[in-house]
Amino acid sequence: MDFQYSDKVKDLQKRLNAFMDEHVYPNEDRFHKEIDANREKGNAWIPTKVMEELKDKAKAAGLWNLFLPESKNGAGLTNLEYAPLCEIMGRAPWSAEVFNCSAPDTGNMETLERYASEELKEQWLKPLLNGEIRSCFAMTEPAVASSDATNIEARIERDGDEYVINGRKWWSSGANDPRCKVFIFMGKTDPTAEKHKQQSMIVVPRDTPGVSIVRHLPVFGFDDAPHGHGETLFENVRVPVKNILLGEGRGFEIAQGRLGPGRIHHCMRLIGMAERALEKMCKRTLSRVAFGKPVAEQTVTLERIAQSRILIDQARFLVLNAADMMDRVGNKAALKEIGMIKVAAPNMACQVIDWAIQAHGGGGMADPVLAHSYASARSLRIADGPDEVHRNQIGKLELKKYK
Amino acid sequence: MDFQYSDKVKDLQKRLNAFMDEHVYPNEDRFHKEIDANREKGNAWIPTKVMEELKDKAKAAGLWNLFLPESKNGAGLTNLEYAPLCEIMGRAPWSAEVFNCSAPDTGNMETLERYASEELKEQWLKPLLNGEIRSCFAMTEPAVASSDATNIEARIERDGDEYVINGRKWWSSGANDPRCKVFIFMGKTDPTAEKHKQQSMIVVPRDTPGVSIVRHLPVFGFDDAPHGHGETLFENVRVPVKNILLGEGRGFEIAQGRLGPGRIHHCMRLIGMAERALEKMCKRTLSRVAFGKPVAEQTVTLERIAQSRILIDQARFLVLNAADMMDRVGNKAALKEIGMIKVAAPNMACQVIDWAIQAHGGGGMADPVLAHSYASARSLRIADGPDEVHRNQIGKLELKKYK
Amino acid sequence: MDFQYSDKVKDLQKRLNAFMDEHVYPNEDRFHKEIDANREKGNAWIPTKVMEELKDKAKAAGLWNLFLPESKNGAGLTNLEYAPLCEIMGRAPWSAEVFNCSAPDTGNMETLERYASEELKEQWLKPLLNGEIRSCFAMTEPAVASSDATNIEARIERDGDEYVINGRKWWSSGANDPRCKVFIFMGKTDPTAEKHKQQSMIVVPRDTPGVSIVRHLPVFGFDDAPHGHGETLFENVRVPVKNILLGEGRGFEIAQGRLGPGRIHHCMRLIGMAERALEKMCKRTLSRVAFGKPVAEQTVTLERIAQSRILIDQARFLVLNAADMMDRVGNKAALKEIGMIKVAAPNMACQVIDWAIQAHGGGGMADPVLAHSYASARSLRIADGPDEVHRNQIGKLELKKYK
Amino acid sequence: MDFQYSDKVKDLQKRLNAFMDEHVYPNEDRFHKEIDANREKGNAWIPTKVMEELKDKAKAAGLWNLFLPESKNGAGLTNLEYAPLCEIMGRAPWSAEVFNCSAPDTGNMETLERYASEELKEQWLKPLLNGEIRSCFAMTEPAVASSDATNIEARIERDGDEYVINGRKWWSSGANDPRCKVFIFMGKTDPTAEKHKQQSMIVVPRDTPGVSIVRHLPVFGFDDAPHGHGETLFENVRVPVKNILLGEGRGFEIAQGRLGPGRIHHCMRLIGMAERALEKMCKRTLSRVAFGKPVAEQTVTLERIAQSRILIDQARFLVLNAADMMDRVGNKAALKEIGMIKVAAPNMACQVIDWAIQAHGGGGMADPVLAHSYASARSLRIADGPDEVHRNQIGKLELKKYK
Repeated sequence: MDFQYSDKVKDLQKRLNAFMDEHVYPNEDRFHKEIDANREKGNAWIPTKVMEELKDKAKAAGLWNLFLPESKNGAGLTNLEYAPLCEIMGRAPWSAEVFNCSAPDTGNMETLERYASEELKEQWLKPLLNGEIRSCFAMTEPAVASSDATNIEARIERDGDEYVINGRKWWSSGANDPRCKVFIFMGKTDPTAEKHKQQSMIVVPRDTPGVSIVRHLPVFGFDDAPHGHGETLFENVRVPVKNILLGEGRGFEIAQGRLGPGRIHHCMRLIGMAERALEKMCKRTLSRVAFGKPVAEQTVTLERIAQSRILIDQARFLVLNAADMMDRVGNKAALKEIGMIKVAAPNMACQVIDWAIQAHGGGGMADPVLAHSYASARSLRIADGPDEVHRNQIGKLELKKYK
Repeated sequence: MDFQYSDKVKDLQKRLNAFMDEHVYPNEDRFHKEIDANREKGNAWIPTKVMEELKDKAKAAGLWNLFLPESKNGAGLTNLEYAPLCEIMGRAPWSAEVFNCSAPDTGNMETLERYASEELKEQWLKPLLNGEIRSCFAMTEPAVASSDATNIEARIERDGDEYVINGRKWWSSGANDPRCKVFIFMGKTDPTAEKHKQQSMIVVPRDTPGVSIVRHLPVFGFDDAPHGHGETLFENVRVPVKNILLGEGRGFEIAQGRLGPGRIHHCMRLIGMAERALEKMCKRTLSRVAFGKPVAEQTVTLERIAQSRILIDQARFLVLNAADMMDRVGNKAALKEIGMIKVAAPNMACQVIDWAIQAHGGGGMADPVLAHSYASARSLRIADGPDEVHRNQIGKLELKKYK
Repeated sequence: MDFQYSDKVKDLQKRLNAFMDEHVYPNEDRFHKEIDANREKGNAWIPTKVMEELKDKAKAAGLWNLFLPESKNGAGLTNLEYAPLCEIMGRAPWSAEVFNCSAPDTGNMETLERYASEELKEQWLKPLLNGEIRSCFAMTEPAVASSDATNIEARIERDGDEYVINGRKWWSSGANDPRCKVFIFMGKTDPTAEKHKQQSMIVVPRDTPGVSIVRHLPVFGFDDAPHGHGETLFENVRVPVKNILLGEGRGFEIAQGRLGPGRIHHCMRLIGMAERALEKMCKRTLSRVAFGKPVAEQTVTLERIAQSRILIDQARFLVLNAADMMDRVGNKAALKEIGMIKVAAPNMACQVIDWAIQAHGGGGMADPVLAHSYASARSLRIADGPDEVHRNQIGKLELKKYK
Repeated sequence: MDFQYSDKVKDLQKRLNAFMDEHVYPNEDRFHKEIDANREKGNAWIPTKVMEELKDKAKAAGLWNLFLPESKNGAGLTNLEYAPLCEIMGRAPWSAEVFNCSAPDTGNMETLERYASEELKEQWLKPLLNGEIRSCFAMTEPAVASSDATNIEARIERDGDEYVINGRKWWSSGANDPRCKVFIFMGKTDPTAEKHKQQSMIVVPRDTPGVSIVRHLPVFGFDDAPHGHGETLFENVRVPVKNILLGEGRGFEIAQGRLGPGRIHHCMRLIGMAERALEKMCKRTLSRVAFGKPVAEQTVTLERIAQSRILIDQARFLVLNAADMMDRVGNKAALKEIGMIKVAAPNMACQVIDWAIQAHGGGGMADPVLAHSYASARSLRIADGPDEVHRNQIGKLELKKYK
């Protein structure tokens, strides 16, 4: 048992932090302003120039594709090694893309890496790994409680050499980015099959006829441009049979493998997001005077800072332990540990950010870092499975010990 | 002791609810779409047509200026009688303006009614009461913790027959609405005077040279158009001496009188906002099936619905009691009761809305009612004095009993 | 709508408070010491002398049987009028007996008053009203989740002119008091009947052969002597047929009527208990200095005091409203309101007392008022129906609006 | 970074668990009954026979003095290695003494080991290590907020070759055990010295004239016999000068070294206590049926079980990390980490045990494991420094990063 980061990790942390200090934080304002300008000009969905500049720099610095474990295509890091790096990116969540480590691309790349044919890999994984294109994951549906996979209504029906795809999806993050060239789509191939064999996943090129974006979904008022979240419609979309991943009826199985990494990456970033909020809370309360002394000296402030430190450190260990489990026993066997952090990390971050906002007074509601983090952390109590679904599953797994 | 609404109130509730059913809820979508369209065309700050239409209807229905107690200019309702009506408006917060009962105009009208000269009343109160113009209240400052009034840095300096005003304010809600024609501005006339005699309030016409809006402040991603919140700059703004309210050094005193009604109105609306969220939570969970049965039948759901009902009813009684205190002993003597609901109501609403969102899954984050209520209720834990400041004051008042 | 106590109530509050000041608080220590002495001598279950003395004084002062509404046998007070008086007794919970207003006697008296024959009334209600005997209510069972009345396993079987009673009960409060002369017992007369017609209630004299106390149940370490809580065994206990209340199969119906008053009395007392804890918190923190200033001046303390004041006032209004509902629409129709306070009041009290203890440091854990209140308030989250059962019921009643 | 226990630890866990299964759990009832019998006979403070029997067995099994790191007198375990073993003992907290690992002896032994002369070690440490005597730590005072060490009023005054000790202490745990033969006493040798140089610690044999126990302090109704907590009086107690530890004015320094291990041991045990409560919650809810299905299948239950698992695992990692810090950088440098677990662990345990009790219904309040754990975990939010003091210190240490 050892709670210290390895030298390899410490070195990467140092390099990544240096990159953040030199390139990311100083460009944060520029990033937002570029989007604001695009939005005012009528199209917020244009990729930013600053992002492409920074991607080149990150690639040059060897800080690229850090996320992909057990693959020659990644940077050779385990989940446990990646976690503290992903945390650093989470301090400025938009920066994950700088290092080609942003959702949903990471989850999609890991899915393609593990479950796609060589042909599909050549076509889609390669440009994704190079940061040339982006991707989208279409699973959640507006009409049903789709955290229960058996509720999924979208269809993937075989018609000769093609599958015909129909369905309405939402929270298709990144769908509207013009660089998004490919969807991984989940639907039912056989609604009469055994409960967890009905679903399949299939690769759908963005420009296939019948794919359309109905509207953009805001997250508590934020459009999250230029990434954004789409409600997407698939009407008689035809793709070749070979685009299916693993085979018919394997969708649920892939989902279990895919969702784990996606969830834990979110949690890693939430740790960093909360750390930054705590840092801002400390700095702000040290500098503001009210009723005769710095706000930082009020015991209410001290308690919140202390509690934040406790909450963050606890959640970090839980995340690291889950990452370690994934490395040691695999994503599926680490189901419980992943579920636990998926509940713990967003709730922790919501609390810490809430306190940080309160410490900023009126400024907190308009602060580009805090206000967006607040919405973002809150959204992760729903995205990738709501708290309630995860807690039920964790509870059932715990009860199993006694049955 | 009697917990039943009077017949007078019951009748007004009935009429107001009927108006909401006939005119407000059916126009909710239209209201949002009109703003969206304006925003897309490049100016979200244009007043909506639907609002002006509805204002006429409300005036015709005798549902106008319901808020102003103890005045021949109002509808003759006490705070206690107004509370359950204001609650109903809170179910669709944008509708308060329909009845000329929206912030910050209500607080400003009440201030002018009580503290302004007849000349100022004729000029500003009259058109405000008629819903012809709107107004702004400029107190909070970005540079200091201005919930401590002694921190205020803005200046109001006498120069002959004029006052010269300098200062930077923010959260000047409604400043950008083209119908906003007048500011009530708080600044220091004498920074060397006794702590609570340094501040004064003064009436500043919107078009006075030197008044400018620096930027719009979003509330967690929402621009709150067409109302909005401005950061405003006052540079050598000159107004006649007679524009001062009550006299130099009376600003803190006016603030104490003005802020009470503003705060309690927010709280009344929050009760309605929470009721609507609970209603949506019930309806949604009744209609969604997950893991084999309606979500409403899960005990987790039942507990949240029960707890919401308890929280709302408790907060409502506290609000009604505070309103009653204001009617019986005056706004200043009801300081503690007002502070108590100012803490209790937003926190209650945040919790109930949070649960309602969770019950809606992904839809909750983009739901125009719930997502905006979430930001709005959260903002009221800061606006008009953060929780912490109110709690400190309540605590001190409670301790006084034992000193 | 009126939030002021009536003059009648104000007068009673004044008289009761005077009695508390003169007779109850000064005897608190003596009461505990008398029990301690008895316990050391080997029998903690001996009624105290101080209690009998004070009962005489209360009777003389006209502060007797204040609880019984709608009856010539009571003091002519409604539930709404009784609530603030019961609250005052709750400040020193042992004092309720001084005024013949203590559980479970009040619930049992109300049950006998409403549902017993004249003969049973003469025999049991009369001496109870005079404070000559005490009583016990035997419903809860150790073997099953008896908050679900259909789980009840105890039997009441007809055999000629007698009922034969068998069953094991626990939390039979007061069973061991030598003055306890009568049980109201709940069991099934017909396990095959419709779900809520299986149960009956019957009067069982304490000295009937077959009634025995198996053991005393501590409440978190407190024996609650001389009252206490028994696990009781009923083995072939025979009572005359006329002892049944209302008739066979009416037990569930009586329970609904009986439990309401019992629950709300507990809640009224919890308000007083919390008030006293808050008072102690204020006094203590004003007098203790740590790290350079009185603990009362720490913002953490101020926040807890403020929050306590908010929580208590909210819960009090909810209790008063429920009492008012019981007076206006009856105990059964006030089911939801009673359930709501049964959840809200104990949880509120647990929180306020917890803070008060924390403010007392080590002293809080051994403080005879606070430490016992802590256990007592906590026990009321389970006694008379656990929170979860009440919340489920409230949730279902709320959902009914939308079905 | 490695989250797996070492083989050495796994082996010890296995042996300790086996011992618990064979000797501790089966004797739990006997242990309580022996104390109950003694209490009924008029003296609850008699050491139990079962304890002495089990101590012999534990010594024979090599499970003895596991706590003492960096010393040839201990079992050669680091804090990190001891933590998971101490957790196991925490499942039945009375069992810690079986392995000579119980408070306050462990803290006192560690203090003597590090700071006492060879002569004092021979006299007191040796029999303590052998489990022949027990000891007491007298620091906390009833008259002042003694978590602020500068408030301490007890005096240690030099008079020739002796120190004269005067003071009133409380929460002197174990003082009344007839096996308790020695006190470590903290008092001021020089109240005029620099703030943290005023205090000293001194060894006081129990039988020195002037040492008396004023009363026993209950913990929420529990007397915690046969160990118990005393209020102790020291009146002109004279001990030889050589009994002072380290020297005059070193008391605060020793306290910092002593309190860390004591605190972390409590936290380790709390993890085990919470694990046992969770286990009982699972088993109970699986076996009880209410409203038509096992309580374990209700989502409210599943959520609480899940949340308990999350809370426990988080707290455990925090404890293990703090233990690791103590091993690597020393007790004093690990101040922040120790403070963090001292806040986190008791609060976590209070929550988990609270849920477990609720799941047991009426039985929970009288359950010898759960009800006592509830009081015990709650007391640790105060003992060894209240939450508030620790949070203030953690907050200040966090803020230091930004000063």
